[in-house]
Amino acid sequence: MSEKMKAIIKTGPHPGLEMVSVNIPSLRYDEVLIRVMAASICGTDLHIYKWNPWAQERIKRLPLITGHEFAGRIIEVGKGIRGFSVDDYVSADSHIVCGGCLQCKIGQQHICSNLQILGVDRDGCFAEYVAIPVKGVWKNDDSMPPEFASVQDPLGNALYCTLVEPVAGKSLLVIGDGPIGLFSVGIARASGASWIGLIGRHPSRMEVARRMGADAVYPSDENGLVSNIIDLTGGYGVDIVLEMSGSAKGLEQGLRLLRKGGRFSAFGLFSAPLPVDMTNQIIFKGITLYGINGRILFDTWYRMHNLLKSGRLDISPVITHKLPFDDFEKGFALLMERPKKAIKVVLMLE
Amino acid sequence: MSEKMKAIIKTGPHPGLEMVSVNIPSLRYDEVLIRVMAASICGTDLHIYKWNPWAQERIKRLPLITGHEFAGRIIEVGKGIRGFSVDDYVSADSHIVCGGCLQCKIGQQHICSNLQILGVDRDGCFAEYVAIPVKGVWKNDDSMPPEFASVQDPLGNALYCTLVEPVAGKSLLVIGDGPIGLFSVGIARASGASWIGLIGRHPSRMEVARRMGADAVYPSDENGLVSNIIDLTGGYGVDIVLEMSGSAKGLEQGLRLLRKGGRFSAFGLFSAPLPVDMTNQIIFKGITLYGINGRILFDTWYRMHNLLKSGRLDISPVITHKLPFDDFEKGFALLMERPKKAIKVVLMLE
Amino acid sequence: MSEKMKAIIKTGPHPGLEMVSVNIPSLRYDEVLIRVMAASICGTDLHIYKWNPWAQERIKRLPLITGHEFAGRIIEVGKGIRGFSVDDYVSADSHIVCGGCLQCKIGQQHICSNLQILGVDRDGCFAEYVAIPVKGVWKNDDSMPPEFASVQDPLGNALYCTLVEPVAGKSLLVIGDGPIGLFSVGIARASGASWIGLIGRHPSRMEVARRMGADAVYPSDENGLVSNIIDLTGGYGVDIVLEMSGSAKGLEQGLRLLRKGGRFSAFGLFSAPLPVDMTNQIIFKGITLYGINGRILFDTWYRMHNLLKSGRLDISPVITHKLPFDDFEKGFALLMERPKKAIKVVLMLE
Amino acid sequence: MSEKMKAIIKTGPHPGLEMVSVNIPSLRYDEVLIRVMAASICGTDLHIYKWNPWAQERIKRLPLITGHEFAGRIIEVGKGIRGFSVDDYVSADSHIVCGGCLQCKIGQQHICSNLQILGVDRDGCFAEYVAIPVKGVWKNDDSMPPEFASVQDPLGNALYCTLVEPVAGKSLLVIGDGPIGLFSVGIARASGASWIGLIGRHPSRMEVARRMGADAVYPSDENGLVSNIIDLTGGYGVDIVLEMSGSAKGLEQGLRLLRKGGRFSAFGLFSAPLPVDMTNQIIFKGITLYGINGRILFDTWYRMHNLLKSGRLDISPVITHKLPFDDFEKGFALLMERPKKAIKVVLMLE
Repeated sequence: MSEKMKAIIKTGPHPGLEMVSVNIPSLRYDEVLIRVMAASICGTDLHIYKWNPWAQERIKRLPLITGHEFAGRIIEVGKGIRGFSVDDYVSADSHIVCGGCLQCKIGQQHICSNLQILGVDRDGCFAEYVAIPVKGVWKNDDSMPPEFASVQDPLGNALYCTLVEPVAGKSLLVIGDGPIGLFSVGIARASGASWIGLIGRHPSRMEVARRMGADAVYPSDENGLVSNIIDLTGGYGVDIVLEMSGSAKGLEQGLRLLRKGGRFSAFGLFSAPLPVDMTNQIIFKGITLYGINGRILFDTWYRMHNLLKSGRLDISPVITHKLPFDDFEKGFALLMERPKKAIKVVLMLE
Repeated sequence: MSEKMKAIIKTGPHPGLEMVSVNIPSLRYDEVLIRVMAASICGTDLHIYKWNPWAQERIKRLPLITGHEFAGRIIEVGKGIRGFSVDDYVSADSHIVCGGCLQCKIGQQHICSNLQILGVDRDGCFAEYVAIPVKGVWKNDDSMPPEFASVQDPLGNALYCTLVEPVAGKSLLVIGDGPIGLFSVGIARASGASWIGLIGRHPSRMEVARRMGADAVYPSDENGLVSNIIDLTGGYGVDIVLEMSGSAKGLEQGLRLLRKGGRFSAFGLFSAPLPVDMTNQIIFKGITLYGINGRILFDTWYRMHNLLKSGRLDISPVITHKLPFDDFEKGFALLMERPKKAIKVVLMLE
Repeated sequence: MSEKMKAIIKTGPHPGLEMVSVNIPSLRYDEVLIRVMAASICGTDLHIYKWNPWAQERIKRLPLITGHEFAGRIIEVGKGIRGFSVDDYVSADSHIVCGGCLQCKIGQQHICSNLQILGVDRDGCFAEYVAIPVKGVWKNDDSMPPEFASVQDPLGNALYCTLVEPVAGKSLLVIGDGPIGLFSVGIARASGASWIGLIGRHPSRMEVARRMGADAVYPSDENGLVSNIIDLTGGYGVDIVLEMSGSAKGLEQGLRLLRKGGRFSAFGLFSAPLPVDMTNQIIFKGITLYGINGRILFDTWYRMHNLLKSGRLDISPVITHKLPFDDFEKGFALLMERPKKAIKVVLMLE
Repeated sequence: MSEKMKAIIKTGPHPGLEMVSVNIPSLRYDEVLIRVMAASICGTDLHIYKWNPWAQERIKRLPLITGHEFAGRIIEVGKGIRGFSVDDYVSADSHIVCGGCLQCKIGQQHICSNLQILGVDRDGCFAEYVAIPVKGVWKNDDSMPPEFASVQDPLGNALYCTLVEPVAGKSLLVIGDGPIGLFSVGIARASGASWIGLIGRHPSRMEVARRMGADAVYPSDENGLVSNIIDLTGGYGVDIVLEMSGSAKGLEQGLRLLRKGGRFSAFGLFSAPLPVDMTNQIIFKGITLYGINGRILFDTWYRMHNLLKSGRLDISPVITHKLPFDDFEKGFALLMERPKKAIKVVLMLE
């Protein structure tokens, strides 16, 4: 293997990313070195690209190889590795966990106290090669195209968020039309949610929501939206709400539309604290609210793998673009373009 | 309303049933009187028809109007009734519960200590009219054909048995090709089970299993059945087994085929105690085994209603025959005929 | 029985309550008439006494017999009653449920869509006799003193809130030193919480918290409170928080003190919407938050009954005063006095 | 450190154990070397001592250092270790898991497909030093005496078995008076079970059961045992049964004594398949049955640690003997003596 590789790097505290040649990472005893076949762009990558306030606050380490969603093949294994070999077709969870903190010990690794995120806290996967601690690596089924295998990190967010409690035979409302919201529609549909609505902002994405299985889509500013959905559910509200917009309006709509005794999954990030009517929307309604971060290692991956391999879940409508790795600038541009057309853009390395 | 009605009755301790004219039931303050539109035949009804040892032991009350699966319209409500009115389109759970025992108090009404079963412990629904305590009555959606609404009692068994824990993204094996096993295949498919196998005995029913969504069907005496399924699951066994055959072979196959840490739902009734390898098949494997009886009142009905109304679940392949009520003898004959062709036979009263 | 009875009544839209003579309630077919033996005063009764803005907004029906916590003996049963008889020693849940709405149907009666609260929406128990629909009535063990049996409604709030998920072997923090917070301390202690802290405001109540089993008590304005508890838990925070103060400070402290992956039960009512840091305190921490209202019918009552009867749970430190019914004004005065000495005041009718 | 150590070894396929001098184990990169301070004797060790049929069938590797319950201090860490250091005071789970199989991936490591048990499949802890893969190591609190820390492996069995579902406010019956049954009584008592019964065979152990918190103890052959307990529970049976006897009689009693809708934890190992009345005792009763093996890594350990450290759980009545390591023959003899006096025997190395 050559000693240098191409990588998409944040070189300093300013907007933009650059493709440069850097050293291939060296390998620790418990890591595997992976040749990246496909890597997909997440909203987080966009923040880092734009160097927005969140990124300025969050990124502590420059220069940084960006990216955290990928699929590839192992080309070298550390000395301490059992259970993985050269040529295994793999992806990895973007959450690199410590293994030693309380949460890691008791089955909540996804919220490890010493969490490192690929492409945020340590070098990521927008590169020809990436080194990953083996405990975060997942073997993909050979039948899965790399562009599907690459997006399992956000798809896993969607699966955990959607299925943290069962959905079969229940009504479910997704708020937000980003890729994870659209994935959730597909997962809810595959898993038997009996009515699926989505509140969104972009007509093209709401159209994709329909293709993923939504029974109804609503522009977030539609008049009478709340009362329409309340009526549709016999006056009760929906059984399940997935808040994936990270907007005050989404949170407020979601809490109003959830029925008494319903389940609320909060996934979208809010830029600041915001007012919540705890008494009327949470306590008197007796709801259960889950904060959702990451994916369950690896229960989420196992069920996702099974849904994808079986064909029960088809995510192709969400993957709107495949581009050569070298065209990454075009990929970022597509995602920033208005009106929104691109949803999930995958950079292909082979 | 006329004072007499037609009813299918067990007149005495001998095989056979008779259609006779009897008084329309009088109504207690907490009951509703329902005009039956459709009533379906269950295996239990066959036992009573044949007057087999189970029936001889179990049936304490003769003469008895048989039948416990139906749909109809309320034509009169008792004085204490709120929430139901004349002309409501309803079905009822066959388990008439006392409301006062420990289980009834703590949310386990389906296993009430003083359970009465329609058509077994009290007069049933194979009649033009049936009186039912209102707490067991469920309102059907108007869109549902009576022959579908009629079979919700066994369909609810299937739903409770299948979904007592989530199935989305998991492999599931149904053992038994009776109507409830076939319903379970459909429910598992609608709810995201990623691989569904069924072990059966009757080619025509295994064909229906495929139409309901099974990925694979196996004759119960197929050579190499166990090792084939173990191989198919990467050597682990399946995540979930639903035992619906009530046969020693089914139990033994099911426990062997369940993976370590898997879930076993036991629904099929065994005619006698039978040997179980507790140590190797239950304890060392760390499985969870649920005894399944009845349906959760009314959580099961709610989710079933939603799956049927939404079209996510199509049960039409299982309902093989609709016959006029007067042709009940033909219905029973069809179900006893070999080779098996009939699966679910519904008697239509209008 | 005489036709008139003494009752504590809100006669009109102004502060204060009056003891007057009114008709003994007539009985519906599904109700029982109960001779009240003990009735305890809740914070809600204080609001109604003071006629504060909440009461002015909430109370729709005047004159109103107040009170919703009691124990007594059945002296008459409606015609439709089975399972209860004259002379049964009973209490009742203050939530009178409709039985017909979605929540009632699927096992969430405590958050019935048509909830009526005793002494708020319909005549209550501060009277010699009260009529209650039988489905809300619970039989007490004969060994239980009336002043204990009377407070099961708030004790049940505490039990549901505390045990909505298991506490054994976990650290638990109660925020708020009202009677329900103090009950929760006792329940958590009886149920194996391995560390119990309470944040309060009143020294006398914090002393009762210690007697109920708290390992540590903290004045809510203590310097360094948050960092002290974080240190005590190895830097993680506590496993479980019960928010029972209904104060912005309590909510904020509770969310900060809960560890990643922990459980938050929200019970205290907030007078208005208030800011919540969803992103950092709920989503990134991956917590589960339960809105708690009422008690599970009757699973909560069953477990409460068992804990009280067995002596595992001793609530006597919380019941600070027993007064004759006629001295109700003194009871209300005690609860409004500063510094706080009274916690739970029970009015005795025999 | 010296290069040789004392160890209690099974030298060949015959009864007995020998204390011999062997090499101190060498260390793999992911292992820690522990100086053993206390090691306790389990029933499994007795089987190996006696070389009974189970041991002859199960033990594949001779010579073998026996023992799997211990506490000690780390004296050397492998090169790949983070989070543990020399001088840490630790114990380890006896289940050494692979980390790569399906169960290990999805949070069910305790039933790993490639499980190795200390002192059974690989060299154990009846030695001055033992090498353990770090992922099975647990840090003890400094306050815990080594003889308590040593028995956490079986205590963890008891905790997992007892608390697999909550016990607070419920009745619980333990069948079997071995150390794990007695531990379970203590755990159930600390965790709020409102009635605790134990069925045993040895008067001295039943006396210990009382000291651990049992409300009632029953000799397994007592006349009227089943009907007495049924009566005591109002005719229903108990909420929870823990089967820890591994006897046909225990299984049969347990299933009869469990109420409808109750929970059954099966932990005791049966020497052969045995008849179970699936229909009447499991299916019609709608029970949930858990096969219990091992302990949840490390959720069980976390809660156990907390219960012990807090003093909520006092296990001292079960630890009947502490002996010098060199007196191991006496320890085994005590455990084989009749009538039974010894329960848990701990060998002390310092």
